[in-house]
Amino acid sequence: MRTTYECIPCAFKQGINVAKSLNMEEKKLKTMIQEILKYLSKMDYAETTPPELAKVVYEIIYKYTEVEDPFKQSKEYYNKKLLTIQDDLKKYLKNHNDFDELLKFVISGNIIDFGAIHDLSEEEIFKTIENIEDNMLSIDHSSLMEKAVKNANSIFYIGDNCGEIVFDKLFISYLKDSYKINKIYFGVRGGPIINDITREDALETGINELAEIYDTGVKAPGVLLDNLKKDFKDKLFEADLVIAKGQGNFESLSSIKRDNMFFLFMAKCSVVADKLGVKEKSLICKKI
Amino acid sequence: MRTTYECIPCAFKQGINVAKSLNMEEKKLKTMIQEILKYLSKMDYAETTPPELAKVVYEIIYKYTEVEDPFKQSKEYYNKKLLTIQDDLKKYLKNHNDFDELLKFVISGNIIDFGAIHDLSEEEIFKTIENIEDNMLSIDHSSLMEKAVKNANSIFYIGDNCGEIVFDKLFISYLKDSYKINKIYFGVRGGPIINDITREDALETGINELAEIYDTGVKAPGVLLDNLKKDFKDKLFEADLVIAKGQGNFESLSSIKRDNMFFLFMAKCSVVADKLGVKEKSLICKKI
Repeated sequence: MRTTYECIPCAFKQGINVAKSLNMEEKKLKTMIQEILKYLSKMDYAETTPPELAKVVYEIIYKYTEVEDPFKQSKEYYNKKLLTIQDDLKKYLKNHNDFDELLKFVISGNIIDFGAIHDLSEEEIFKTIENIEDNMLSIDHSSLMEKAVKNANSIFYIGDNCGEIVFDKLFISYLKDSYKINKIYFGVRGGPIINDITREDALETGINELAEIYDTGVKAPGVLLDNLKKDFKDKLFEADLVIAKGQGNFESLSSIKRDNMFFLFMAKCSVVADKLGVKEKSLICKKI
Repeated sequence: MRTTYECIPCAFKQGINVAKSLNMEEKKLKTMIQEILKYLSKMDYAETTPPELAKVVYEIIYKYTEVEDPFKQSKEYYNKKLLTIQDDLKKYLKNHNDFDELLKFVISGNIIDFGAIHDLSEEEIFKTIENIEDNMLSIDHSSLMEKAVKNANSIFYIGDNCGEIVFDKLFISYLKDSYKINKIYFGVRGGPIINDITREDALETGINELAEIYDTGVKAPGVLLDNLKKDFKDKLFEADLVIAKGQGNFESLSSIKRDNMFFLFMAKCSVVADKLGVKEKSLICKKI
């Protein structure tokens, strides 16, 4: 999907918040802001996806802040936090393993806000999972997805954020144990971008024991088809089934031309919600 | 006060919302957005007040939309709506006329959101007034202001929005009846800008029967000292006491060099609230 003008203040604000958290020197900050605005004034938003927009905004921020991975600490924290409760999460899955429940479980990983603040308690994590049980999927292609999983020999699963990846790992492990899937590939970003998973972050969680990792080669919070590493692209089209987690993957891949691809995420902003004809914060399991 | 980078996405978003409500043609909208972003990338936010910023953003919007006063209908609606209940508001004032209550009454005019949606009921208006009674003034220079009103021979009262002006009119009428004030001047914007009052809007409410009207000469949602009409500026410095309503007047006049000037408003955004060291939505009666 393409951005709209409503994505512009949002991208700007998000980027600025990162810069703010790094306590930049005022003069440098001002020059950086001017460069971001100049880029925004020149780019054609109707031809740009939100992750492409974010990619450039963050490139500018990283250039001025000279911090390669401002979310490093936060990402490690969330991965570790979720790994410490992975046995409890496994137990939960044992008792909630019909396909609808599995989907809601893995989407709840996308809901928990893995922001920069280190205050996520185990109680809050389980509360999120329990609350999601009462929610309907606003777009519900779960039975189509279940059928696709049953028939898949290979799955390309594209992850989204740190922390959330532990939910993905447990879900993938469950799929491997329960269905006749020979091969699972796991997609990550090509380098640090916001709190999205890179190869390094993925290795921390041990997901490589279950799946072969492929990275996009690009530091963008999504999968930009035009700049994609060949092996990632090959797997994206070769796999029997693609499962893409999170809004950034939907934003960048919603117009891809292939069958058997499903998006699992929470529609976190009004632009995406409007595009899908659902309310903000709706839970989505959508086939394209 | 000067803008911060946080004002930039806010100004952009507000401006775009107006353009959106006018159903602009897509190509024109895009060019307009690019021009706004180009201006934002070039202006020095640390040397610009929020109303100066809004002035330019709205100039660009008006140029592209070719609508001189997009809020005209809405402004008329709110003025009329409030005028139809002015007798009830007067009755309310009769029973709530200690100085603190008077102030809260007139600030409640600044709270009601006179936006573009025509759905403000009388019930909601009185609910706002009643709710404000329970609220404290977060910055409370009311006793200083009462003293200043008692000693004033002339007052320059600078208004803010349509609809709200009916509260200002009743407050001014009360001041005239209760204190020994010979002359009241009433300040308005120099031309249509958002839902702020112009001379034309002020005349609709009959406030000219109580006060002499002066306009800034500038289409900005505040009072820009550098571009001010001489007679407005003279009165601003000659009057014994100045009362300025609304956040836009505070943003543009908070660093003015004169005694006996009070700002009455609700701190509607985090930038202003932070500057004042109060929470967002705090009620303010502040002397400078």
